[in-house]
Amino acid sequence: MSYDIAAIRADFPILTREVNGQPLTYLDNGASAQKPQCVIDAVTRGYAHEYANVHRGLHTLSNIATEKYEAVRGTVARFLKAGSEDEIVFTSGTTEAINLISYGWAMPWLEAGDEIVLSVAEHHANIVPWHFLRERQGVVLKWVDTEPDGSLDPQKVLDAIGPKTKLVAVTHVSNVLGTVVDVKTICHGARARGVATLVDGSQGAVHLPVDVVDMGCDFYPITGHKLYGPSGSGAIYIRAERMAEMRPFMGGGDMIREVTKEAVCYADPPMKFEAGTPGIVQTIGMGVALDYMMALGMENIAAHEADLAAYASERLGALNFLDLQGHAPGKAAIFSFTMDGPAHPHDLSTILDQKGVAVRAGQHCTGPLMEHLGVSATARASFGLYNTRDEVDRLVEALELAHRLLG
Amino acid sequence: MSYDIAAIRADFPILTREVNGQPLTYLDNGASAQKPQCVIDAVTRGYAHEYANVHRGLHTLSNIATEKYEAVRGTVARFLKAGSEDEIVFTSGTTEAINLISYGWAMPWLEAGDEIVLSVAEHHANIVPWHFLRERQGVVLKWVDTEPDGSLDPQKVLDAIGPKTKLVAVTHVSNVLGTVVDVKTICHGARARGVATLVDGSQGAVHLPVDVVDMGCDFYPITGHKLYGPSGSGAIYIRAERMAEMRPFMGGGDMIREVTKEAVCYADPPMKFEAGTPGIVQTIGMGVALDYMMALGMENIAAHEADLAAYASERLGALNFLDLQGHAPGKAAIFSFTMDGPAHPHDLSTILDQKGVAVRAGQHCTGPLMEHLGVSATARASFGLYNTRDEVDRLVEALELAHRLLG
Repeated sequence: MSYDIAAIRADFPILTREVNGQPLTYLDNGASAQKPQCVIDAVTRGYAHEYANVHRGLHTLSNIATEKYEAVRGTVARFLKAGSEDEIVFTSGTTEAINLISYGWAMPWLEAGDEIVLSVAEHHANIVPWHFLRERQGVVLKWVDTEPDGSLDPQKVLDAIGPKTKLVAVTHVSNVLGTVVDVKTICHGARARGVATLVDGSQGAVHLPVDVVDMGCDFYPITGHKLYGPSGSGAIYIRAERMAEMRPFMGGGDMIREVTKEAVCYADPPMKFEAGTPGIVQTIGMGVALDYMMALGMENIAAHEADLAAYASERLGALNFLDLQGHAPGKAAIFSFTMDGPAHPHDLSTILDQKGVAVRAGQHCTGPLMEHLGVSATARASFGLYNTRDEVDRLVEALELAHRLLG
Repeated sequence: MSYDIAAIRADFPILTREVNGQPLTYLDNGASAQKPQCVIDAVTRGYAHEYANVHRGLHTLSNIATEKYEAVRGTVARFLKAGSEDEIVFTSGTTEAINLISYGWAMPWLEAGDEIVLSVAEHHANIVPWHFLRERQGVVLKWVDTEPDGSLDPQKVLDAIGPKTKLVAVTHVSNVLGTVVDVKTICHGARARGVATLVDGSQGAVHLPVDVVDMGCDFYPITGHKLYGPSGSGAIYIRAERMAEMRPFMGGGDMIREVTKEAVCYADPPMKFEAGTPGIVQTIGMGVALDYMMALGMENIAAHEADLAAYASERLGALNFLDLQGHAPGKAAIFSFTMDGPAHPHDLSTILDQKGVAVRAGQHCTGPLMEHLGVSATARASFGLYNTRDEVDRLVEALELAHRLLG
């Protein structure tokens, strides 16, 4: 299948807009991705023609909404190649998903002195929930550093596992360095040692084909709004055996079989972990977004982005005033950098914005990684399925302008 | 201001659709409300023209999204007459909001033997999070029954407070009986006894003007999708003194000031309680919905619905085959009923749907109330700001048909 980038770009209405009189060059996909018209249409149709609450109704609108909503469970299972849609729990995003695992699985099972192994490149969403367990019940966090090129040595992760280790929590793709982690080696190695694995798929599922069974992980959360879907959508794959070990996280309607004054009888998984009225329309929209990606083909998206990554590496690498972070082989199209001299990445971002180029500047929710890299902040250009080589050129031009103004 | 019901109905595109060849008569507002075009447009515009992640960006789109998103905090504060927008925390709905209070405030402060006073008419969202504390740390739940007419005697609630009581959690309006609870007497009485109060505003804020300061509550959650806003949106008012007592609930980005390998320094409230990328576009949509309601005027909406409630009481009360639940004076336009004979409320709902009348049937997430009423389920017709007397008539006609078919 050919990858018709012009047709793809035409699917995303926001890409035709201008910013500060310049065409929008949207390179903040690591924070959140734009939405194709089919997703926007699904949301509009959901509210304008087919809206009602799900699960509890018997009337027509409720049945339509329930059918569309529940069908997304199968879509997510196909997207992640999970064995069963019963292993998919809907969430509002990866943050809620990892908190679900922290509160629902780790909190009741981990004791003082038990260890969680993390890489230093984790996003705060995959750090702070574990810090809670350290603060509240004496769990120990063990950190594995990245290599000088930004890669993560899977053997070092496995070597960090000791007799008290209960969980390894690593990202699939670093949101700062673009590093693709060899999570399969980590997950299989950890499982051989009887240790559970959580792979943060916030970035990985956007850029790479995912097969959670082949990967061998126990928990794999994804973020709808980074996957070209609506804000407030997400899901997590939880291997059935682990789901059976979990206690509920949030309490409310829908996650119960029976509630009396004296006790609660919980629903079967996955409903046990979905309390209250869910994000109905945004979940339906996420399903449309995943179908859109699968129709393009995850292999094709990955190949397109690999080409962008190679081209951006070459062009950004040639800017001798730029300090690029992360050179791991096969890295995803995510580039963090600082500029020589006193200019703060925030200033860089502001000048780029004047040229219509949207990048992020700051810590990218990765405090420990910033400390490890010895920087207080970076600017980050993160590419998506609709970006082009022309946009790499526009980024480079804007950086050259920033260098002239700030350098 | 006159209440132009035809113009209001024209604002809601779904109300023009047919169901089973009949005009839609949407009486399932207690489960979720329909959306005006201005809300749908705000969502569409958010995705098609102004989308980016919030808070962490410096580029134009991120600044636009952040400004619109953060402005909603002030809108919610105005809607609830909170003293400060810093007392407003965004959530995905009331279920997450009450879990936030359960995990963030009650869990660290309540010990085994401490009591929570609840009414028997609470929704599962205001029951199950407290059952968690019973199961996990020995907190005692004390229940106050409703009166035979469905009202809740505030003095009985206050009388249930003992020296070990730490929290009173009651609904503002019953989602089954329509009862409007005298929460002001309860909150002021509880505060005089040094006891915190959570008032579940899921239904109350939809039907009545709310003033949380005058009411005197500590916690007041609202649900965006019941307030004519998008699914997955919501907020909670938390009195500043209580917020200062709370520890964080979900961990992740945005709710921290600094994260290192060793520790976390949390952000100031309310951000401390909002982890990760929030429901950006649905929150913006909720703000538009609340502005829509405030433009109509909450007093006007309440007056319109009071007229509907009076008319529906009269017409439904005249159906001698119907057993109506809840006759408290001044009740909201929410009517639960069963039919004499063996017919299940589910059958009733299905027949009504054939006539285009959408009502809910089941337990309505109120297991203890169903037990107290001595019924296994009811059918429920719940009215909203766009419903009419004609729709009451259509409900009655459909019920008469159901009686002929099932009775």
